[in-house]
Amino acid sequence: MAITVEKLKINFKTLEEFKKFKEYGAQELSMLEDLEANMVEDDSHSPFYGIYFGDKLVARMSLYRRDARFDQYFDPPQDYLELWKLEVLPGYQQKEYGKRLIDYAKKYKMPIKTNPRMNSRAFFEKMGFESVTYEMDRDRGENPLVWYPEGVSEQKHS
Amino acid sequence: MAITVEKLKINFKTLEEFKKFKEYGAQELSMLEDLEANMVEDDSHSPFYGIYFGDKLVARMSLYRRDARFDQYFDPPQDYLELWKLEVLPGYQQKEYGKRLIDYAKKYKMPIKTNPRMNSRAFFEKMGFESVTYEMDRDRGENPLVWYPEGVSEQKHS
Repeated sequence: MAITVEKLKINFKTLEEFKKFKEYGAQELSMLEDLEANMVEDDSHSPFYGIYFGDKLVARMSLYRRDARFDQYFDPPQDYLELWKLEVLPGYQQKEYGKRLIDYAKKYKMPIKTNPRMNSRAFFEKMGFESVTYEMDRDRGENPLVWYPEGVSEQKHS
Repeated sequence: MAITVEKLKINFKTLEEFKKFKEYGAQELSMLEDLEANMVEDDSHSPFYGIYFGDKLVARMSLYRRDARFDQYFDPPQDYLELWKLEVLPGYQQKEYGKRLIDYAKKYKMPIKTNPRMNSRAFFEKMGFESVTYEMDRDRGENPLVWYPEGVSEQKHS
């Protein structure tokens, strides 16, 4: 079966599938409220991408374009992607689903910033992500990792 | 034994104790590098506060004052505290150490913002923290909870 990354349509079925992921949180609860309030179905303006195995969602990530004026990570400052909630369900790991999602994100050829749990740092480093110099006022409790496309480097602060 | 909250001095001993906490991450690694590079001992300009049981650090949090110009959460906009890495070691939980840390933070009478793991939301809600309306460009993958001192309310965005 071919593995394809799809932009997820936010509907009650998708939100039900999201509950299986550990990082289910305020974002999903907010989408659920929006659905319930407006009875909008199949909202495709979501930042979620995922991989289905048959009709089961087994991997997902959220990918969001941030404007250059918020860029504190990259040189030259530019629009970049923020990636969060990258997660593969237990039983579907070690099958490169995570790598497929990352490859999908890299295709935009924009810098990527993420804040992974410490136990997934090794995975991100294997995917070419690098640490940045920690700065408390910017990074606070985060563990930022970034991916640089060609021609982009770390933004240096004094 | 009286429970007291102390501002932590960052030295090799403290950083060794930090390794026992799950949320050990980029911030601690950065502090370790600074210590190793400068051979500064007992740096007291750290944002960490903790509780010792005997000479063992059993609970900690990081508390950081953010300037009003970054305030996207509170009305009126103002300086506020960002709280992260609140954690009590296993075996020392259910003894109100977490509550003591929160009470300490509240004494500043400034609004507090945190981004707890979903499984500690119940604790924060018991401490009087409330959800804010989720906004993707502000909150991204976070699960923000805030505490309002008297006279402060949620900042409304259109």
